[in-house]
Amino acid sequence: MSAKIRLYVDHPLAPGQPVAVSREQAHYLFGVMRLDAGAPVALFNGRDGEWCAHVTEAGKRGGTLVCETQTRPLQMPPDLWLLFAPIKKARTDFIVEKAAEMGAARILPVQTDFTNSERIRQDRLQAHAVEAAEQCGGTFVPEVADLQKLSRLLDTWPADRQLMFCDEAEAGSALRLATGGRGKPWAILIGPEGGFSETERKRLHAMEQAHVVSLGPRILRADTAAVAALTLWQQALGDWS
Amino acid sequence: MSAKIRLYVDHPLAPGQPVAVSREQAHYLFGVMRLDAGAPVALFNGRDGEWCAHVTEAGKRGGTLVCETQTRPLQMPPDLWLLFAPIKKARTDFIVEKAAEMGAARILPVQTDFTNSERIRQDRLQAHAVEAAEQCGGTFVPEVADLQKLSRLLDTWPADRQLMFCDEAEAGSALRLATGGRGKPWAILIGPEGGFSETERKRLHAMEQAHVVSLGPRILRADTAAVAALTLWQQALGDWS
Repeated sequence: MSAKIRLYVDHPLAPGQPVAVSREQAHYLFGVMRLDAGAPVALFNGRDGEWCAHVTEAGKRGGTLVCETQTRPLQMPPDLWLLFAPIKKARTDFIVEKAAEMGAARILPVQTDFTNSERIRQDRLQAHAVEAAEQCGGTFVPEVADLQKLSRLLDTWPADRQLMFCDEAEAGSALRLATGGRGKPWAILIGPEGGFSETERKRLHAMEQAHVVSLGPRILRADTAAVAALTLWQQALGDWS
Repeated sequence: MSAKIRLYVDHPLAPGQPVAVSREQAHYLFGVMRLDAGAPVALFNGRDGEWCAHVTEAGKRGGTLVCETQTRPLQMPPDLWLLFAPIKKARTDFIVEKAAEMGAARILPVQTDFTNSERIRQDRLQAHAVEAAEQCGGTFVPEVADLQKLSRLLDTWPADRQLMFCDEAEAGSALRLATGGRGKPWAILIGPEGGFSETERKRLHAMEQAHVVSLGPRILRADTAAVAALTLWQQALGDWS
């Protein structure tokens, strides 16, 4: 019987390893899903791949699973960061969920000159990334960083990390990407809903690592743009081809 | 002063043409947005492009705008249909919104062997497509068809319409698309969450017009898959390049 439920745990996974589940997880596994002792669960921790485990203790406030065999090795996504300016709550949640599904390695919410958000709930967004990994069969969970100023991030931008960004004010070409380096570190920057400021635009265009890319003739919402940009990148340079 | 508010109206647009607004639109324009007589509004009807209009009468239950000049011609999307199996309400809404943003010409909800939905609210989905066009600066609104059985749709499938579909059970290649015909009628079929049935899979693979495409090594939710597939298509064969 193979496990249908996938669970992220922050715990080492190895043959015979017992894993205690949290109160919340116990509620889900034994209350909502009604698993009993002996039921299989797939576990992953973002480091050791996916493991088949079985319930050995099922309680209301906790329980124990025991790891048996590794069912899949850890599959790391490419070294791709997604930078985006937080928008309305539901759409920000979506961007994080989609970035995890689409195989971003790190998610960085950034404050641009035209971003309204002053703060984000990093813990809630991280939980969304975990849930997306549980749902989409991933064995890796991207880290969601805390909100930071785009300008500060660019101050210390790594010399070897290429940056793909979509500037509505300028027609870029998706084809230019193909000439960029496969296997290199990359980042995608999704502009805020109000666009970039003139200062930001100048700075980004002046960066040696920058690649302007077009996302077609229609204006896309930030969450749509995130999925579209990740698709173009994965297809041209990532693990889709 | 250029118009910031974009409004879809089901009315012919021409120079000097008066356009009556509905009670709902009056509430939005004059109540929520507090527009007075003289305020500019951008109008489009999906046929005559985008027009600059001005408020001439603002009332609680209705009002009138007068069309002045065309500000943009009608921009038709490519002849691309999006077929998808309805899922949870919020995600179905999202698929329709994204399809309109990404430039699908027609949206067809389909019932597959593993689809749970028996019905959809066609009017609500059509309203989502209108709202997406208003938001994304489009001048065209894709028609949302009523729910129909995939098998029946395939019974009368047009001989010249190519069909791109994503089959999780088989590794396709996104590159094969490049050899398909640009400028031809196309459709994208997004599989249901439970995948296709064996009968459906056999039938789809046997179709001369079928092109199996891969959306990478991770399992994508249907709404993510819709945006990713539309991106691949627009980039390879549509109006993105």
